[in-house]
Amino acid sequence: MPGRPIRELGEDRVLSRFRALALGTVGADVVVGSGDDAAVLRCPGTVEGPATSGPHRDLLLLFACDMMVEDVHYRFDWAEPRQVGWKAMVQNLSDIAAMGGSPTAAVASIAAGGDLSEDVLSGIGEGLVAAASRYGAALVGGDLVGSPGPVVVDVSILGWVHPDHLLLRRGARPGDTVLVTGSVGAAAAGLAARHQAVGEAESTLLTEALRSHHEPCPRLDEAHAIAGTGLATAMMDLSDGLVTDLPRLCEQSGVGARIRTGAVPVGRACTYVATMLGLSDLRLALAGGEDYELLLTCPSERVPELRSTVIEQTGTEVTAIGEVTSDRKVVFLDADGREQDFGRGFDHFAAVRRVQ
Amino acid sequence: MPGRPIRELGEDRVLSRFRALALGTVGADVVVGSGDDAAVLRCPGTVEGPATSGPHRDLLLLFACDMMVEDVHYRFDWAEPRQVGWKAMVQNLSDIAAMGGSPTAAVASIAAGGDLSEDVLSGIGEGLVAAASRYGAALVGGDLVGSPGPVVVDVSILGWVHPDHLLLRRGARPGDTVLVTGSVGAAAAGLAARHQAVGEAESTLLTEALRSHHEPCPRLDEAHAIAGTGLATAMMDLSDGLVTDLPRLCEQSGVGARIRTGAVPVGRACTYVATMLGLSDLRLALAGGEDYELLLTCPSERVPELRSTVIEQTGTEVTAIGEVTSDRKVVFLDADGREQDFGRGFDHFAAVRRVQ
Repeated sequence: MPGRPIRELGEDRVLSRFRALALGTVGADVVVGSGDDAAVLRCPGTVEGPATSGPHRDLLLLFACDMMVEDVHYRFDWAEPRQVGWKAMVQNLSDIAAMGGSPTAAVASIAAGGDLSEDVLSGIGEGLVAAASRYGAALVGGDLVGSPGPVVVDVSILGWVHPDHLLLRRGARPGDTVLVTGSVGAAAAGLAARHQAVGEAESTLLTEALRSHHEPCPRLDEAHAIAGTGLATAMMDLSDGLVTDLPRLCEQSGVGARIRTGAVPVGRACTYVATMLGLSDLRLALAGGEDYELLLTCPSERVPELRSTVIEQTGTEVTAIGEVTSDRKVVFLDADGREQDFGRGFDHFAAVRRVQ
Repeated sequence: MPGRPIRELGEDRVLSRFRALALGTVGADVVVGSGDDAAVLRCPGTVEGPATSGPHRDLLLLFACDMMVEDVHYRFDWAEPRQVGWKAMVQNLSDIAAMGGSPTAAVASIAAGGDLSEDVLSGIGEGLVAAASRYGAALVGGDLVGSPGPVVVDVSILGWVHPDHLLLRRGARPGDTVLVTGSVGAAAAGLAARHQAVGEAESTLLTEALRSHHEPCPRLDEAHAIAGTGLATAMMDLSDGLVTDLPRLCEQSGVGARIRTGAVPVGRACTYVATMLGLSDLRLALAGGEDYELLLTCPSERVPELRSTVIEQTGTEVTAIGEVTSDRKVVFLDADGREQDFGRGFDHFAAVRRVQ
């Protein structure tokens, strides 16, 4: 019997099947394998054992990848080639931030048809290099292959983290507070504006939303400030939206969460654009994705200390949006305590048909 | 003016443009950036300086990626999904071998349509894991994204090498002997047989050719034996065929080469299949690619020592096929000393149109 199409399985089930396959290969150098924002590895030559015994020897490596497909993740009639490259790199930089780490080097593979303009290809390359340089990483290699299909950009990144600063998705404990850096929803609002063909010159807030969508920034400074406090119990980045990503963090931690939607810091640009388009800003903010903000948990009594440290070091707000529960359910509650359903965020396979 | 289509530039010029872009980002941790089989990095936390001062501290990291596209690099009516995954991983393992290194960990990104069967996806995953495990690496993460186009598999690999064993494409010197491990041409013969729809049960040599094409093996043991001698001056792996890859090695070394085509170790399976199909086995062997044998140079007087060490440690022959020259030209000569033209090997952009 041929297998079911992967669309019917859904992204998370497909991913967990893949993870199960990879489990068998976890070796001595692997501290954390598949299932987090990045894999965690011991540096080659490091003696096995507790990873906290020296100042330099035991830095851990972080290794991750993220792929972007034309007309699924970006469109060349909406985004400059440079923005495509920038975003492909930022997704990966954000994965390193999510672990509390620092990016070092990246490689990029690109599949493209022979009649793609060299200017487009150069633009993608410039964007990749610009984002890497901006955040302290070097683009050290890549592959470029022909394809009859959409342009595909895949970036892999290498970073490092001091073992005391490593933050995983697992580690959240019942009673912890759930927090998010900055604000959410502007990137989704920018995408919604593109879908409705709203022009760029309309207002500064619309420009901000479009910029959030096309040129996101990884929260590396904030990640370092958070990791430096030693107070966070779990962390990840928001790439697919709170309603999709928070359940992932909770699953890895074996917990649930109760979110007060009224507390979620919806970006001003999101609210402005949502109003203009007749959409719900809260839905964009929770289900939209691509904010690349950090989602974290922290023991409730330490939240003031963590927040003040981060704002002092980076100028970025960290907002408490709910608490971790023991019941393994993730619920979003309105002001009256009623459960709200925002569906799921972006599922890669629900929407895409194989058209070949 | 819009740029030219990249097909007109050719793969190597496109790649060198990309390399020029990346040069600006070479930082303190980068020992060798783009342009070799893998980038060479210092482990994070390593003090800058001569990389040979300690037994463990100064192991170098290797970082590379290779992408495969359905209907360009493989076809599902010719290859089992497991073979697709295997080969995608082996390409990367071979890049690590080419540097004299050992693979540690890999990540894999896959783009696929929602109606791809879960069995196909699982098969690819099993092949990735099987090849990684077989050669001592762990598959530690990945990305899985929807795409309306062909299935794309991109693997990135991390390895390590002792600085004394690092072998680069640069380093070949005029007068050095050019050598190749094992034999070449079987993979190209296997591909040619597929194109002519020749069945698998015909003979063991045909089966061997098909296997070489679908399930290549990286020459890691041979690479370690070669690197251990300290005698090789330059090395790379043969992924695109001698006529394409040797000029790359020569360019990096600032030299040329004169190859005696009669000395090239053409595989028995290649000759058998070529005869069956009415093709030139020499052309398949030189221009065909995907052999994943090692191409290396060594001072002429040390060749016997290098060859006997490698065959003793691995059982694999290393064959002298020509010599390095100072004139920056790569020529292939027949038994009478006449220059032969085999064109170029596989160019990713010459053949592929963007059909979207």
